[in-house]
Amino acid sequence: MSRGGQPCGRREGGTCVTEADHNEIPEIVEIPAVRDEDGRISADFLALIEAGIAAEDAPALIGLAGDLHEADVADLIEALPEDERVPLVRLLGDEFDYATLTELDEAVRLSILENLPSDTLAEGIGELDSDDAVYILEDLDAADQAAILDQLPYSDRIQLQRSLDYPEDSAGRLMQTDFIAVPPFWSVGQTIDHMRETEDLPDTFHEIFVVDPGFRLIGSVPLDKILRTKRTTKISEIMTEDPQTFKATDDREDVARAFERYNLVSAAAVDDAGRLVGMLMIDDIVDVIQEEAEEDLRGLAGLGDEEISDTVLVTARSRLTWLLVNLCTAGLAATVISLFEAPIAAMVALAVLMPIVASMGGNAATQTMTVAVRALATRELTARNMLRVLRREVLVAFLNGMTLAVLLGTGATLWSGLPGLGMVIAMAIIINLFFAGVAGLLIPVALEKAGVDPAIASSVFVTTVTDVIGFFAFLGIAALWFGLPL
Amino acid sequence: MSRGGQPCGRREGGTCVTEADHNEIPEIVEIPAVRDEDGRISADFLALIEAGIAAEDAPALIGLAGDLHEADVADLIEALPEDERVPLVRLLGDEFDYATLTELDEAVRLSILENLPSDTLAEGIGELDSDDAVYILEDLDAADQAAILDQLPYSDRIQLQRSLDYPEDSAGRLMQTDFIAVPPFWSVGQTIDHMRETEDLPDTFHEIFVVDPGFRLIGSVPLDKILRTKRTTKISEIMTEDPQTFKATDDREDVARAFERYNLVSAAAVDDAGRLVGMLMIDDIVDVIQEEAEEDLRGLAGLGDEEISDTVLVTARSRLTWLLVNLCTAGLAATVISLFEAPIAAMVALAVLMPIVASMGGNAATQTMTVAVRALATRELTARNMLRVLRREVLVAFLNGMTLAVLLGTGATLWSGLPGLGMVIAMAIIINLFFAGVAGLLIPVALEKAGVDPAIASSVFVTTVTDVIGFFAFLGIAALWFGLPL
Repeated sequence: MSRGGQPCGRREGGTCVTEADHNEIPEIVEIPAVRDEDGRISADFLALIEAGIAAEDAPALIGLAGDLHEADVADLIEALPEDERVPLVRLLGDEFDYATLTELDEAVRLSILENLPSDTLAEGIGELDSDDAVYILEDLDAADQAAILDQLPYSDRIQLQRSLDYPEDSAGRLMQTDFIAVPPFWSVGQTIDHMRETEDLPDTFHEIFVVDPGFRLIGSVPLDKILRTKRTTKISEIMTEDPQTFKATDDREDVARAFERYNLVSAAAVDDAGRLVGMLMIDDIVDVIQEEAEEDLRGLAGLGDEEISDTVLVTARSRLTWLLVNLCTAGLAATVISLFEAPIAAMVALAVLMPIVASMGGNAATQTMTVAVRALATRELTARNMLRVLRREVLVAFLNGMTLAVLLGTGATLWSGLPGLGMVIAMAIIINLFFAGVAGLLIPVALEKAGVDPAIASSVFVTTVTDVIGFFAFLGIAALWFGLPL
Repeated sequence: MSRGGQPCGRREGGTCVTEADHNEIPEIVEIPAVRDEDGRISADFLALIEAGIAAEDAPALIGLAGDLHEADVADLIEALPEDERVPLVRLLGDEFDYATLTELDEAVRLSILENLPSDTLAEGIGELDSDDAVYILEDLDAADQAAILDQLPYSDRIQLQRSLDYPEDSAGRLMQTDFIAVPPFWSVGQTIDHMRETEDLPDTFHEIFVVDPGFRLIGSVPLDKILRTKRTTKISEIMTEDPQTFKATDDREDVARAFERYNLVSAAAVDDAGRLVGMLMIDDIVDVIQEEAEEDLRGLAGLGDEEISDTVLVTARSRLTWLLVNLCTAGLAATVISLFEAPIAAMVALAVLMPIVASMGGNAATQTMTVAVRALATRELTARNMLRVLRREVLVAFLNGMTLAVLLGTGATLWSGLPGLGMVIAMAIIINLFFAGVAGLLIPVALEKAGVDPAIASSVFVTTVTDVIGFFAFLGIAALWFGLPL
């Protein structure tokens, strides 16, 4: 949350009321809204900030941005031209909340981190909650990490180092290592007094943990329960035994799924011996949920983890891989067509109609595949309902295949004057939609079984199937029907 | 959370230890784990439940499932064959937590709601937090809604009715109407005592609100802050002034974006006059975040809001729309090809290669389009950075177009023995990738400006562009290059 400086004495609407002297009429300065109605950083506010940076007017910038939420400062930084970002951070000085860095795109964050001296960084990062500090540190290379860690107090350094030692994408990297743990025999009153007296509490927390003398987790108590209970009650009487708990080595995707499923707001992280080592918080988990849903979308579209702030070369290279893979698919489809050069030369109408068959199959397969990929990700598709879902997909494919066959058959007959051509395309579309439904379901399932992320790999295989079968069925049936040379 | 019956005295691992008598050796019954290692309901547990349903053994079922989290019961219900779902709910009786219904797919929920008597439903729903009750009621038709509402106590009925009166997809439908509001002059001690004495508190909450005598919101205090503060301190001294607040009529998507941006766990909902009417909670917002990310994925793949439990007919109809729209696109592409029947008849190799040009353009466009759709949804793409992003997309398209042109040009030359054909396909692929990049970005942007959801409509237009331009460029350049008849 935002810290320090209250440059604006009192805010009324978008107006800052500076009370220079209690006897004078307050001086009123119009501050434009930070965001426009679409939720983007407003042009007026950005112009003021850019003017402040140009004039190196630190007090003005602190007045404008020192009090903003870190998410607003982050969006502001991203809205600035690249060469004004670090100057803004420098000018804000102590008023810059380093939690802002956690809200930035990775490329922007790294460029800021590279351009700030490590002692400034160490000071800023040292003030953060441990989960935020780890989030920032984990992207740095080992040397830069060490340079910052070395300047932190011993206990902070050890804590952060331990979190960084957990594998990437593990719960250990997400967890907050400051939390409150009390023994079960304490009373509610003792617990409240303890919280009032302890200095080094996390910024926010929603539950406290109950541990045995070996620091093994034995329960948790949500804060609202503490507040509703009489001071004399023992913690052991109100604690939730066996709360939902995660190992620090658990995959963050599994953790996110459990948070979502059980509507959790926070949860304990324990080590292999069951000892409490951290606290997982919903705000970090929301980011994971968002990223996971987005990963499927990106995977299906053949995108890596590119960000809008990446450079042209990085983006081009990451997208090229996908295009090259698809080039092979397209080459395979072309090979199938080349088998039918003679029939096509004899009846050019085939060349006109053949892409329709392939593309309708591709569209139908993409629908099924998207459903299958998401159902696998959310664990809705299981070995138990696989047959039921397959039957459903085949029936849907058949129904829609029939409808398209009637429409396309009629259209092709009218266009070419050849009822036979209408029959051929109708048969081909029914066949291709059937395979589209089956492949759209079974390919993601098979990939998942093989340990490959179905979101990333499915569409290449599925498109290959619908292209190859589409061209083969249409051109093959046509050659047979019209007795064309092969 | 799960209520009532503790059929298993003490749990050790997956084992239930029933202490029949303190002097006897405890009787140990093996209960299989509810979920298997992939997080799906385990086959063993399901078999036990199915046996219990077949034997109509209510006590056994209550012992197995009465104590589970509502999310587990929901997954269990969905794992059961359709005709065993309502019997399970009936057999669980009072031990069935109606919050379970909020975790079910809509089709499953509706079929259960239709098969339970309205007085049973009213009793179960009456015990829920208001946000859960509204979630269940909003899917019912007016008559069924009224039948349940009529059996609720007056105050509950009025509260639920008011929430239901807010528009669909508004914050008002998501909010919890039980919350704690105190005047600013109360002390922390008074507030804690008030919470200890008030009966009708929400199941969970993370902050309390501060209101003026007109019940207008003036601040909020997170629970951890209350617990850290001395009893004598006034609430007004520790409250957050101007907390992030939403109107009950706000769109839930905007609310979700703000929760995510500002890492909120709960927030107040106010009416048009600024009076506090409800509390928005992160667990409901997580569902919205998930749904919104998924909506983009579904939209791009041409899927409506189908669920894996929908019937074949419903699914087929909802997918057909998309296929028919794409049929028009494919028809347009075929029309372009038909303009070049003469050149194709003269050189059949063109028919073999032309789908490659169209499909590479389609793939590149999908990449750009997916980035654009997500960047629009997350407000990362703005009028300000549009030109920068466009320039980047054009450069990426150009770089990848060049690479593909070299590969395809060489391949086509080797295959056909005609260097000219290699040149033609190289030129065509560069042109098509350029248009793919431009259309992939500008079409979603234009659709958003026109007030159409870019996730749903973009890909039809984008595919049309890459198909039409791909075929036109390749066949047109070939006809010119080789002087083919038109």
